[in-house]
Amino acid sequence: MAQFKAGILGATGAVGQKFIRLLQNHPWFTINALGASGRSAGKPYSEAANWIESTPMPDSVKKMKVRNCNSSEFGDVDFVFSGLDSSVATEIEAGFAQAGIPVISNAKNYRTDPTVPLLVPEVNPDHIELIKIQKFSADGSGWIVTNPNCVAIPLTMSLKPLHDAFGIHSVVVTSLQAISGAGYPGVPSLDILGNVIPFIGGEEPKISAEPLKLLGKLEDGQIEHASFPVQATATRVPVINGHLLAVNVKLNEKPSDISEVSEVMKSWKSPIADLGLPSAPVFPLHIFADERYPQPRLHADSENGMQTAIGRIRGGDVMDVSYIAMAHNTIRGAAGGAILNAELLVKKGFLK
Amino acid sequence: MAQFKAGILGATGAVGQKFIRLLQNHPWFTINALGASGRSAGKPYSEAANWIESTPMPDSVKKMKVRNCNSSEFGDVDFVFSGLDSSVATEIEAGFAQAGIPVISNAKNYRTDPTVPLLVPEVNPDHIELIKIQKFSADGSGWIVTNPNCVAIPLTMSLKPLHDAFGIHSVVVTSLQAISGAGYPGVPSLDILGNVIPFIGGEEPKISAEPLKLLGKLEDGQIEHASFPVQATATRVPVINGHLLAVNVKLNEKPSDISEVSEVMKSWKSPIADLGLPSAPVFPLHIFADERYPQPRLHADSENGMQTAIGRIRGGDVMDVSYIAMAHNTIRGAAGGAILNAELLVKKGFLK
Amino acid sequence: MAQFKAGILGATGAVGQKFIRLLQNHPWFTINALGASGRSAGKPYSEAANWIESTPMPDSVKKMKVRNCNSSEFGDVDFVFSGLDSSVATEIEAGFAQAGIPVISNAKNYRTDPTVPLLVPEVNPDHIELIKIQKFSADGSGWIVTNPNCVAIPLTMSLKPLHDAFGIHSVVVTSLQAISGAGYPGVPSLDILGNVIPFIGGEEPKISAEPLKLLGKLEDGQIEHASFPVQATATRVPVINGHLLAVNVKLNEKPSDISEVSEVMKSWKSPIADLGLPSAPVFPLHIFADERYPQPRLHADSENGMQTAIGRIRGGDVMDVSYIAMAHNTIRGAAGGAILNAELLVKKGFLK
Amino acid sequence: MAQFKAGILGATGAVGQKFIRLLQNHPWFTINALGASGRSAGKPYSEAANWIESTPMPDSVKKMKVRNCNSSEFGDVDFVFSGLDSSVATEIEAGFAQAGIPVISNAKNYRTDPTVPLLVPEVNPDHIELIKIQKFSADGSGWIVTNPNCVAIPLTMSLKPLHDAFGIHSVVVTSLQAISGAGYPGVPSLDILGNVIPFIGGEEPKISAEPLKLLGKLEDGQIEHASFPVQATATRVPVINGHLLAVNVKLNEKPSDISEVSEVMKSWKSPIADLGLPSAPVFPLHIFADERYPQPRLHADSENGMQTAIGRIRGGDVMDVSYIAMAHNTIRGAAGGAILNAELLVKKGFLK
Repeated sequence: MAQFKAGILGATGAVGQKFIRLLQNHPWFTINALGASGRSAGKPYSEAANWIESTPMPDSVKKMKVRNCNSSEFGDVDFVFSGLDSSVATEIEAGFAQAGIPVISNAKNYRTDPTVPLLVPEVNPDHIELIKIQKFSADGSGWIVTNPNCVAIPLTMSLKPLHDAFGIHSVVVTSLQAISGAGYPGVPSLDILGNVIPFIGGEEPKISAEPLKLLGKLEDGQIEHASFPVQATATRVPVINGHLLAVNVKLNEKPSDISEVSEVMKSWKSPIADLGLPSAPVFPLHIFADERYPQPRLHADSENGMQTAIGRIRGGDVMDVSYIAMAHNTIRGAAGGAILNAELLVKKGFLK
Repeated sequence: MAQFKAGILGATGAVGQKFIRLLQNHPWFTINALGASGRSAGKPYSEAANWIESTPMPDSVKKMKVRNCNSSEFGDVDFVFSGLDSSVATEIEAGFAQAGIPVISNAKNYRTDPTVPLLVPEVNPDHIELIKIQKFSADGSGWIVTNPNCVAIPLTMSLKPLHDAFGIHSVVVTSLQAISGAGYPGVPSLDILGNVIPFIGGEEPKISAEPLKLLGKLEDGQIEHASFPVQATATRVPVINGHLLAVNVKLNEKPSDISEVSEVMKSWKSPIADLGLPSAPVFPLHIFADERYPQPRLHADSENGMQTAIGRIRGGDVMDVSYIAMAHNTIRGAAGGAILNAELLVKKGFLK
Repeated sequence: MAQFKAGILGATGAVGQKFIRLLQNHPWFTINALGASGRSAGKPYSEAANWIESTPMPDSVKKMKVRNCNSSEFGDVDFVFSGLDSSVATEIEAGFAQAGIPVISNAKNYRTDPTVPLLVPEVNPDHIELIKIQKFSADGSGWIVTNPNCVAIPLTMSLKPLHDAFGIHSVVVTSLQAISGAGYPGVPSLDILGNVIPFIGGEEPKISAEPLKLLGKLEDGQIEHASFPVQATATRVPVINGHLLAVNVKLNEKPSDISEVSEVMKSWKSPIADLGLPSAPVFPLHIFADERYPQPRLHADSENGMQTAIGRIRGGDVMDVSYIAMAHNTIRGAAGGAILNAELLVKKGFLK
Repeated sequence: MAQFKAGILGATGAVGQKFIRLLQNHPWFTINALGASGRSAGKPYSEAANWIESTPMPDSVKKMKVRNCNSSEFGDVDFVFSGLDSSVATEIEAGFAQAGIPVISNAKNYRTDPTVPLLVPEVNPDHIELIKIQKFSADGSGWIVTNPNCVAIPLTMSLKPLHDAFGIHSVVVTSLQAISGAGYPGVPSLDILGNVIPFIGGEEPKISAEPLKLLGKLEDGQIEHASFPVQATATRVPVINGHLLAVNVKLNEKPSDISEVSEVMKSWKSPIADLGLPSAPVFPLHIFADERYPQPRLHADSENGMQTAIGRIRGGDVMDVSYIAMAHNTIRGAAGGAILNAELLVKKGFLK
């Protein structure tokens, strides 16, 4: 496999740092350039970043000079990962794509753009074809691919087998979200220690909308979104990593009994299982039998943080099925998801 | 008001200690007797109990000799509060009632007994009349009244105005429950620090069943239970006090818009508001406008822990209404609820 | 007792909010004016402040218009409490004192000024006389009094009886400090949840220096500081309120045995015990016999947060005595301490 | 390297589970036998143990039948690791040693036995020779080696370079200890969430005594203990893993300045650095320059949990040096330390 040179936009932020940590020793990708705001530009990364990862800053980036997030300064990369804040991502990402530099973004800005794939390799790898109709660059060499919100990922991963087997009628979900999802400095400790905050600004609309695009069908260069309603309550809990969801699903076709639902989830096979993507989990879904599981502190790191864990599958009298879903919000739900997207894009020949 | 002499069964446990603390300086009730297991019987209370309340053990109980939970040793009380463990409550509580000593119990054992009121004064004060058909004692002098599960209380308090105004079709609820609900020593810190446990044994069936009895109608000496389904997921979070619920409700009659629902909850009037019960909160329901509220650490102690706080009332596409409800689980949801029951029983002449 | 009209400087910050909460229903003091930065000035307090106290904002301040911290806007107060940030306190506090408005400050800026009392009423009430030599205002009508750092308070409260009885040779102390000490937003939750931060900027020098002024002798208008060394390590722990100290003390005169030390601490009598100050704790020092105590979550609120709790008094082979001391850092150690200072100043005739 | 067959005593407890996890994939040792109490004996391990590690139970032990901790049932092992509770370790460990089965123990029972090495390979590898004078078995084939208390380890690791370079006069230390040190179920969450417990039963005497044996000199088959006093305060904080110590040391020879102390710690070389022991950390001591470090949540896992991290080295006016030390309490401070001991015993020919 050829090596690819990657740049990271928003490199000093929490997501940018996670990109750096996860790309350390990546077999295909090498970090060649780091971009951040004008405040950091020109400084060595070790000075510009307030490093918050628990493993030490890799030596390879310490002396790397931080650049402005300007495509003209990124002539030496094959593509960029974007961990940019949404307040600046719209213009910067478009600028890179227009300059012929592919952008694999964790920002929300282009997720709802009808020409931009909102991509989870195990869920909708075919949506990648949307790239071909993007108009950012004249010759199609620059484009944008996004990954979903950190709750939408485990939710959609868990809905996918049910959607395929039974059809989904409606979803009611409560999320118990980790503090790392708010970045750094993020949630003040006085607000969350020994407490629950029953509101996360802007989160519920994303949880309701993104699964519908992810589970949509690509036809004639358009995504026909899935059409079921998702009613969400997003809460913050004092957990470091791992968003946990209490999911309730009403199905279109009724299963004969709840064990049929379990069986569908257990026997589900990832469409990318055989592609040999380095960051793909061996078991993208893990179904726990022990009703105490999954738990974020115990299981968020499973399969290097890329697994979605399911537990407590059971029937109900209002909705047909209830279960717990949980995944690492800053790996599977952010930087790790974007890296897996990049790996699929290599395999499918979009990055070359 | 005459003074009543109360005994406490299970006095050394977490609920028993809460009874002792809440009854300190109570205007109507004086603690006259403490009962616990044979291991504690005969010892002064200060030796028998591992006191876990944050305020000091009241001097009035320190030297009180702990008794066996045997009605023959409780001849000097007008009634007893029971904080007994469910493993022993069935026999002991019946024994007291048979001996003519009223039992006001927090244990779950008789909650589903059709002759025993499951009582929340603000919700179903009329159910108190069931006492008259109880057969524990020949002359009716001994009887049992229970209060509901700590999640069922805030859930039912919040459902009551909706049930009266619109009729409830179905409920989907996720609870985020405090560790104090598990008693002492209860939840090991290694299990819950920085974590969520998505399961609480035996909790969900109570959450589903108890609101139906509470919202039922007493007719001809029988409770006709309400009949909507409640689908519940119970989780444990690292919070000291205060169970928080993410509630979703489908209504029988549709409100014109969501503000009608808010208005119904805000304008709801407690049927016991004018009875002058010492432990009754002035505002049994408080509706927050700030969408960050209620939060357990900030609001569980409101109105001495007897208030149910509501927030984030909003519409939805699957269920008609979503909101947050929260109450102090060991006060409103346990010992404080039982004391309020006793106060109503005094006012209604059942205790005399 | 006549009523006094108080202003609060820095009213929107964490300390300012604590002043407002503690002065609610104060028998002597009424809040007449609130001052904050230019960003808040002109707004009603309910808009200007992001209220973080757990009890609701008092109605009396909600509509009060926030003023600039300029003495010319505070003509209608008898004195001001200052919860100003140290970055601005030097000039503003001097300005008020020069304008003849007494300043009772929680800021650190004037604590080391040789003409400014660093005051703990139970420790050095006589230092109040320093006011008479202050030169801020020509006629002496304006002056500044400060209270110490939140660790220095419980440390000095606990050292005072030992200093008087045995003389202190040296102190080695480790503090385990609550997050509320860092204000709001203060410590990011990602830094402190399930963690310890073994450093608090600027804290250790204050812990070493302030007890020496507090235990100093006023002679000829000068404080002769006590002269023992204090070696401190300040750490932050995931606790909401209550700084806990592990104290080790070497004494000048050796006690016959450790019980003599305990006895000295238990029998210590506050010099202001009989003055009837509303905020003075009945027992400024409480000595626990139970070796598990004191604990911040259980005991920080004792005596309305004004008590210093001591436990685990025992001898040692390096230093003569080891013990635990603990007090509420934002009440006893900040706003509550300042209010007690104001009460003493009233009683002694400095406020009139 | 030949393979060794290891048994684990106390295999179902917290320390036993840590042994199992750390020995998974060990290059020299294979688990051949698991021993526990009579309650577990006869059951497959997956049934007998309530697995609390965050990584899954290794398949290799799931079906292994748990045995009684009786040497006659352990004929097929080369040696045993003991994670036994101290209430039973005295007899059981002696029984194994008498039967010719070497015991490498984490229990405290034989730590003070003058013939039993209390061993930290980086500190006192020569003490291993004590084995030769042990009398447990007639032919010397059975013997006991212990590792120290989880606080004594990082304390002694940090004192060793100072002891060699300057001589230690006295030590004052406060520990902030993680909850995992109390085993499972261990500390109730109601006791420790948002709190500090300033007492750990039995801990302080071990912290005072064990460093003296570890830093003692072996002469004529006897350990001459080091002789300085250690005054300790042990506290519990809401941290999962990692004991943090605030250490103050008075030295016999005075360093010219504090940088000389830092230099001595940084340049210290482990005596076992070149032995190729699989569990030996490359850097047994790591000295942080950043004064916010070390922190337990960020650094306890460094070098697979086997590193001792040091920070904030600075001078003082009471003791000559203050610093922070931190290590993983259940790896470096327990099971991992015992495994490293076993590796040294292999290398030195005591296990063969």
